[in-house]
Amino acid sequence: MCHIAVIPSVQEASADDLVGKTAVVIDVLRSTSTMITALASGCAGIIPVETVCQAKELQTDGVYIGGERNGRKIPGFDYGNSPFEYMSPELRGKVVVMTTTNGTRAIQKASRASHVIAAALLNGRAAAARSLAFRRDIVIVCAGTKDRFSLEDGLCAGFLIHEIERITGERPDLDDMGMAMRSAYLEVRDRITEEIMASRNGKRLIKAGLREEVIYCSQANVLDVVPVLEEDMLIADVLKPELLP
Amino acid sequence: MCHIAVIPSVQEASADDLVGKTAVVIDVLRSTSTMITALASGCAGIIPVETVCQAKELQTDGVYIGGERNGRKIPGFDYGNSPFEYMSPELRGKVVVMTTTNGTRAIQKASRASHVIAAALLNGRAAAARSLAFRRDIVIVCAGTKDRFSLEDGLCAGFLIHEIERITGERPDLDDMGMAMRSAYLEVRDRITEEIMASRNGKRLIKAGLREEVIYCSQANVLDVVPVLEEDMLIADVLKPELLP
Repeated sequence: MCHIAVIPSVQEASADDLVGKTAVVIDVLRSTSTMITALASGCAGIIPVETVCQAKELQTDGVYIGGERNGRKIPGFDYGNSPFEYMSPELRGKVVVMTTTNGTRAIQKASRASHVIAAALLNGRAAAARSLAFRRDIVIVCAGTKDRFSLEDGLCAGFLIHEIERITGERPDLDDMGMAMRSAYLEVRDRITEEIMASRNGKRLIKAGLREEVIYCSQANVLDVVPVLEEDMLIADVLKPELLP
Repeated sequence: MCHIAVIPSVQEASADDLVGKTAVVIDVLRSTSTMITALASGCAGIIPVETVCQAKELQTDGVYIGGERNGRKIPGFDYGNSPFEYMSPELRGKVVVMTTTNGTRAIQKASRASHVIAAALLNGRAAAARSLAFRRDIVIVCAGTKDRFSLEDGLCAGFLIHEIERITGERPDLDDMGMAMRSAYLEVRDRITEEIMASRNGKRLIKAGLREEVIYCSQANVLDVVPVLEEDMLIADVLKPELLP
């Protein structure tokens, strides 16, 4: 039976939670949604880094830098953290170094796991299938916001659990946070967009004029790309049929 | 409008979360359930302390000491942490000094708030009414287990939010964890006992032969007593009709 734990915000993830497992990192608003969109649009790879300095050091010809601090594009950076920017044809075949307040930090921290993938509502079903294919215990790491739980990440965790259940045809073995997030998701599944718009990050982004981005990121199962961490780069994974559970 | 935040486990509660607010501390399995039961059974007051030493120092004639460490009664203590023990007529009019792994620590930490009350499923509706009567922002502190979220505390937080909604007739202003716990509770409200029996603490206690205690603590709204912290002692509060919201 599949064992799944959910970490409510990145600060709470310990090495014990990660080592030997498959880590699924979620930052629905907006960094993992943006990464998935970028790779789905033809970007060759994303290097997540923690600091602005690290990003700038890696900027060269053909390598773009992107990200945000407190929701705003960083001065001197090529791109911000909007999924819409990363649909640009300019990024086809190019590598982006990315740093965000919560999401890239969560990926860095999760890198102690045996496998790391990035998930959001956009690629939920594909991410669920990919995480099962590694055939290890799964730990879903909600990035959260400034060390606090974010509703959209928690609901996405519940959604992934639900998709895993659909694929395996059985109820996985869940920790307490996993049980709570599964229930929370099931209760609001028919009004996910409204729930996310009412969350703290949803309200903040709408106030900043980014309502369309919140609506975009609230869509479930519209992309099949799963960013998988290989060395220090997230690349688009194509799930081989023989790996399907 | 009533503002409510939910802290998923005591370790995450900061002074900022508490100061100026009404803190509602929850440890369903079992310490707040036990405290509520004790006061409902005629116990005069409960002094929550952090350490075994502090408890032993306060033990005198007519003052009992009770509590647990990792679920087990502490050597030399008069009582453990079972609600059933605290129904004893011997405790009528007596004070109990109590120390538990998570619950009493949560109350100690919450004491930075303007008002502190103890809640569980047992006294949910009464605790909801009492917390509103202080007319301040409310922070629900889930004790959790060893710095991790516990499902039964989270579901009880969702239940309290639901009761507050029923009393005020309007949806309170919730933080992200409050929204998630409200949804999780609503999804499982018809099978709360089964959910709690499937939680980590539920399974642990059932394995230890304490199934009846888990079932007892899973009952909603069977007691009207609300333990309120006055100085360093929790006493049974009787809600004056003029304070009702």
